[in-house]
Amino acid sequence: MDRRTFIKKGGLAAGAAVAGTGLAAPAIAQSLPKITWRCTSSFPKSLGTIYGSAEDLVKRVGEMTDGNFTIRLFAPNELVPPLNAATAAAEGTVEMAHTTSYYYLGKDPVWAIGTTLPFGLNARQQNAWLYRGNGLKLLNEFYAKQNIYCLPAGNTGAQMGGWFRREINTVADLSGLKMRIGGLGGRILEKVGVIPQQIPPTDIYTALEKGTIDAVEWVGPYDDLKLGFYKVAKYYYYPGWWDGGPSLHMMVNLDKWNELPPAYQAALTTACEAGNTDLLARYDWENPIALRELVKEGAQLRPFSQEILSACFDAATETYAEIMAGNPTFKTIYEDQMAYRREAFLWAQIAEYSFDTFMMLQQRAGKL
Amino acid sequence: MDRRTFIKKGGLAAGAAVAGTGLAAPAIAQSLPKITWRCTSSFPKSLGTIYGSAEDLVKRVGEMTDGNFTIRLFAPNELVPPLNAATAAAEGTVEMAHTTSYYYLGKDPVWAIGTTLPFGLNARQQNAWLYRGNGLKLLNEFYAKQNIYCLPAGNTGAQMGGWFRREINTVADLSGLKMRIGGLGGRILEKVGVIPQQIPPTDIYTALEKGTIDAVEWVGPYDDLKLGFYKVAKYYYYPGWWDGGPSLHMMVNLDKWNELPPAYQAALTTACEAGNTDLLARYDWENPIALRELVKEGAQLRPFSQEILSACFDAATETYAEIMAGNPTFKTIYEDQMAYRREAFLWAQIAEYSFDTFMMLQQRAGKL
Repeated sequence: MDRRTFIKKGGLAAGAAVAGTGLAAPAIAQSLPKITWRCTSSFPKSLGTIYGSAEDLVKRVGEMTDGNFTIRLFAPNELVPPLNAATAAAEGTVEMAHTTSYYYLGKDPVWAIGTTLPFGLNARQQNAWLYRGNGLKLLNEFYAKQNIYCLPAGNTGAQMGGWFRREINTVADLSGLKMRIGGLGGRILEKVGVIPQQIPPTDIYTALEKGTIDAVEWVGPYDDLKLGFYKVAKYYYYPGWWDGGPSLHMMVNLDKWNELPPAYQAALTTACEAGNTDLLARYDWENPIALRELVKEGAQLRPFSQEILSACFDAATETYAEIMAGNPTFKTIYEDQMAYRREAFLWAQIAEYSFDTFMMLQQRAGKL
Repeated sequence: MDRRTFIKKGGLAAGAAVAGTGLAAPAIAQSLPKITWRCTSSFPKSLGTIYGSAEDLVKRVGEMTDGNFTIRLFAPNELVPPLNAATAAAEGTVEMAHTTSYYYLGKDPVWAIGTTLPFGLNARQQNAWLYRGNGLKLLNEFYAKQNIYCLPAGNTGAQMGGWFRREINTVADLSGLKMRIGGLGGRILEKVGVIPQQIPPTDIYTALEKGTIDAVEWVGPYDDLKLGFYKVAKYYYYPGWWDGGPSLHMMVNLDKWNELPPAYQAALTTACEAGNTDLLARYDWENPIALRELVKEGAQLRPFSQEILSACFDAATETYAEIMAGNPTFKTIYEDQMAYRREAFLWAQIAEYSFDTFMMLQQRAGKL
């Protein structure tokens, strides 16, 4: 009987009974097994905050377990192509994938929800729904059928809308616009006239420079600065309403997860939850610096007009209705999130928003 | 030579050299010592999210260390009075305190900064400055002189401005207003005419009911609902600009911290960082529910007027100038935070604020 089976079969209950008698715990701790895992990332090392945060995460697991549970992180294509990471974890090619669930929405649109839905929750709300609401529970019931256990492990905060070669003011301006954007955001934009394009990251810059595409969405100031899009498309629109608060994940092979000693499960779970604090802090620290640099280099900041946002919001609602019609699991999880979204944005506009608004007014008045 | 000294003297470097030769790690892990700590909390169990989050935090440390590093959490006055928690940790009466640094600003105003400054940073920015900026480094240099090592371990998000028996619209309305509020918020409000009152939590309700005080600030909807202030003071003002994003802390006795094996230091550090995600998620989940209930019970939501906020902002700036004049450590840390505040609120109004604003407009239009 292995350790875990022993615990399941009542070892812990028996231990608790002994503790109840007042016997002190033995002075010498039990040893935990040496375990080495491989984690494949969907994100290139050039996405420094995301990859760096994952490096720290796995390092911490090693430190907390005194070097006994070691997770090696691999960049895309070292073991597995980037968009195959979660699949490789499910199949056991690796024990774990550092990825984001909406990369796999081709399998089933339910995969999109764990990252974020267009016009979904902001970063804090996404965590509240995942950890304290039904979010993670419902999603893990779904992922279990794919042999995966999901741990949220970071959030980028609201992203930018991306780089456009010309100004867009009205919905009419979107008509025929070729934009590099995937996922549900692309499907929604298609309803308002955009022609979504799938282009590998390595080819985006040239396509934008040559005018093969008119626009591209990427992440936000810190990551966008490095790719230099501002040199070939100067209008930098916001917000990225398809990424209002996207979560990243550690997707763990379910059998491997179940075999882990509870101490290692706790270490990995806690490291991932700390990863949420860590990645947001990295972006909130780096983005202001990068934004200054981008504006200095000539980037022109532009908010999407209310007309465009409203048309996209309605197109999103229509898209969700279409998906729900044929996908009861999506419907259940979507409606659960939407019930929270309604209340969360009501509360958010009281203390948080009024504090931020006042501080932003002081910022604009040069008083900060 | 104890284990920790061995590591410091090059044990790890020697180990790394061995690893470089390709020798596999030994199959049997080293045991770590059994350690039991006591943690005294400043927060009563009735503050369910705060106390509950700390309970989970110490439970996690136990789980991650396979039950070897156990931290027992004590409510206020079980061992130590609530506002003496950090002092007790510094003196070694307990190994650790669950508290918030600004309770101790009577010792030195620098203690206020680690929690939050009035008109300071919001919750995400506070974490960014603490973890990725110079914040925690500078503060721990200061705390080290008091024999404390500080780990941020949660944030409430922006709090409410509190409960008022009558409407206040102008600065003139603040004149002579008796408000239960402490710390720097009280000192700043005094400059605009308020008479700050110190009243123990148990006596606030009666004082407010009898009109001994005119107003009280507490936390936000979830905690305020339980204390029932809405029954005796119906105007619920926002935002609590003195608590725009306050951090809670685990304050550890520095000697005890230095004696911990690195694995336990990592476990406690990671559990505290995860505690930041956890506590915010708890509040972001619970506050919307409580807000509905408060409004149903007759609470009248009122934003502080721009006139009042501006007068308080100027009074805050004046207060910081006074403190800096006689306190170079405060000046150094304050100015470091202010440099980030300026940039952070510039960036925050781009993607994050425009996303939130649009979603709030949809909320008001009944489209969520």
